[in-house]
Amino acid sequence: MTAPKAYLAGPDVFLPNAAAQAAAKIAICARHGLTGISPFNPGLDLTLPPAQLWRQIYLDDIAMMQGCDLIIANLTPFRGASADAGTLVELGWFLGQGRLVFGYSNSAEDFAARSLAQMAASPDPAPGLEVENFGLVDNLMIQGAVEYGSGSSLTLPPDGRSREFDALDVFELCAAEAARKLGA
Amino acid sequence: MTAPKAYLAGPDVFLPNAAAQAAAKIAICARHGLTGISPFNPGLDLTLPPAQLWRQIYLDDIAMMQGCDLIIANLTPFRGASADAGTLVELGWFLGQGRLVFGYSNSAEDFAARSLAQMAASPDPAPGLEVENFGLVDNLMIQGAVEYGSGSSLTLPPDGRSREFDALDVFELCAAEAARKLGA
Repeated sequence: MTAPKAYLAGPDVFLPNAAAQAAAKIAICARHGLTGISPFNPGLDLTLPPAQLWRQIYLDDIAMMQGCDLIIANLTPFRGASADAGTLVELGWFLGQGRLVFGYSNSAEDFAARSLAQMAASPDPAPGLEVENFGLVDNLMIQGAVEYGSGSSLTLPPDGRSREFDALDVFELCAAEAARKLGA
Repeated sequence: MTAPKAYLAGPDVFLPNAAAQAAAKIAICARHGLTGISPFNPGLDLTLPPAQLWRQIYLDDIAMMQGCDLIIANLTPFRGASADAGTLVELGWFLGQGRLVFGYSNSAEDFAARSLAQMAASPDPAPGLEVENFGLVDNLMIQGAVEYGSGSSLTLPPDGRSREFDALDVFELCAAEAARKLGA
């Protein structure tokens, strides 16, 4: 049987050591019988004009996603109360395609608490906006996309302690869960 | 011909006057030959336990999305550098389903500038993380989802001046563009 292909979505591509991080995730996937596909593309022609370069990245990412059976999304909060924006579009795409949706976060903090911290650092764009508070770690559409998109829960630090942004142990738990579900 | 059904995604549901905002958007859609479907649900049983309530909201939203031909997403930045998290999952879902994707933002500010402001208010979770800078108003996956998901651009304030969070004139331009594309 061919190893299931997992699209490794996440803001990891913005890390200074993005290539090494991608390689580490792919190695973890291999240990669990999955083929990891990272959107980090060292072959990208960075001399292209910006308007051409972003479209190339978009089309490359969509093409990679088309070739994958599942997504393992890094949903660690990024520049705001919630997960990385591009990662969330990709998560929704897999759900819409009826492909399997897995995700993890290195943060164990409650979404409502993080939203309030965000609002303290940078006030809301209008007064009186509600704070979603269901005891989840992010917006309910994210939690739902994972739960109804794979039957697994969002993978969180099992000891309740938030990890460094680039830590990989929670990712590995998530990859193991995906492999288990897929019988990989 | 039946009017195309537009799912009106956005953090508008968190507004204190969410019901009135939903009604105003639905009226604008009607003027342009579209049936607006708002995720705001005044009939929700708020006495349900949180773990049951958020799943009910998720399933209601997905059911509404299933019944729609297109999404008109409010992509105005919300609690961070980017658009609302739940809205982005829904945007990706429509793209994955091959349904039409339209979106607008009331902010005219460059994504890189907003990312830097976010980082100043609330430092990045790791040092050296790159700032995406393609002269767009949000993450390239959002811009790409709209552009490749409908052939239209993300609708922005035509005069380059950011609007109030709940302003509706840019939404109306977006609804008009969607109606034009659909021949509604």
